[in-house]
Amino acid sequence: MRYGYFGTMRVKPGHRDEVVATLVSGQDGLRAAGCDLYAVGVSDDDKDLVWVNEIWVSKEAHAASLRLPATRAAIEKTMPLLTGEFTGHEIDVVGGLGVPGEA
Amino acid sequence: MRYGYFGTMRVKPGHRDEVVATLVSGQDGLRAAGCDLYAVGVSDDDKDLVWVNEIWVSKEAHAASLRLPATRAAIEKTMPLLTGEFTGHEIDVVGGLGVPGEA
Repeated sequence: MRYGYFGTMRVKPGHRDEVVATLVSGQDGLRAAGCDLYAVGVSDDDKDLVWVNEIWVSKEAHAASLRLPATRAAIEKTMPLLTGEFTGHEIDVVGGLGVPGEA
Repeated sequence: MRYGYFGTMRVKPGHRDEVVATLVSGQDGLRAAGCDLYAVGVSDDDKDLVWVNEIWVSKEAHAASLRLPATRAAIEKTMPLLTGEFTGHEIDVVGGLGVPGEA
């Protein structure tokens, strides 16, 4: 079963687009690390919130990705622009359109 | 920009797998209607909750899909198994791995 991480991060006012730009980059590295989906979203309802929905081949692949140099660089660049308020849910992604089958 | 709908629905106890099975079916129709992602998930943290993360080519495509016979049949089949408690967020999906570009 695919591993899903559905979360939000709150940005310091005025820094949303900068955070989004960093998060949508580095797609090749994510794919190589076992990521199927890394969808970055925003909403006019709350202009200082960034939504990230991730689907990975496994929870382990997600955890391992956090130790990659490119990921660490992105985190280092992004963290000063965040307030530190996060939400997140770990989900077992059963399937559906756009969800790859078992590896 | 892609339209995202990230939500949950609460099922009556014992009916989760039945609801999930209905939701993960009908993928061909969804794709034809302009859906890129319809990821259905669950979590051991709350066994009566079903997560659905959708990405569509537009908000209009999502709205129109609700009037399709296949969608209406799935809704009709699922509704009696739900408690009526929903959460949902409409998101502008900016991009990222697995998110198609502009149509």
